[in-house]
Amino acid sequence: MPSMSLRIYLDPEGRIGPGKIALLEKIGEFGSIAAAGRAMGMSYRRAWELVEETNRIFGKPVAIRQAGGRHGGGAVLTPLGLTLVARFRAIEAAAAEAAREHVAALQQEVDKPDPVGPPSSAHL
Amino acid sequence: MPSMSLRIYLDPEGRIGPGKIALLEKIGEFGSIAAAGRAMGMSYRRAWELVEETNRIFGKPVAIRQAGGRHGGGAVLTPLGLTLVARFRAIEAAAAEAAREHVAALQQEVDKPDPVGPPSSAHL
Repeated sequence: MPSMSLRIYLDPEGRIGPGKIALLEKIGEFGSIAAAGRAMGMSYRRAWELVEETNRIFGKPVAIRQAGGRHGGGAVLTPLGLTLVARFRAIEAAAAEAAREHVAALQQEVDKPDPVGPPSSAHL
Repeated sequence: MPSMSLRIYLDPEGRIGPGKIALLEKIGEFGSIAAAGRAMGMSYRRAWELVEETNRIFGKPVAIRQAGGRHGGGAVLTPLGLTLVARFRAIEAAAAEAAREHVAALQQEVDKPDPVGPPSSAHL
């Protein structure tokens, strides 16, 4: 099945793509940046860098570390983090729906046999 | 201004993104893979690799080198190449239109001051 991936670029700086969004979703799921990073095969350091980068893009946090307390070492998404995840997934769904017909047409081009036969250096 | 970029993944293999599409557009414009590559700051070798990769994805050529003749060393897009460029740009436009409202809402989050003041380690 053909698919699509997208990135958004917010002004003045900052790219938000599927990697950061999946990480935030896992932080929400596990309540821990370390566990979220592990689930995505990345170090705690890398996971935290991505969270910090996203915090910087918005000028306010998308996830908050909770040092101490019952959930010491844990992390939660802020309302902004939840909004970001929901909006990004909505953007993906809307974009995929809008693009569906064109993507299907391109996939058909792949599936169609080459009218002039298999690729050879002759027509490359 | 916020913006978006997207890649499509055709089955069974092959990512098509803005880089390959811009290269094809420049090949159409200049009639030359070398000139198109130069315009994008890439070597002839790299430009040709990207064309070959795209040919492979479709199992047939998106651009054809024209060795010899009046335009010796030149290249032209095939009808498939032209279709690919047009479909990709249409996908981008449709996706951007469909996502516009959500992207604007995220940009507003960036532009809104942090209600709890400037970022500090206290709430990170």
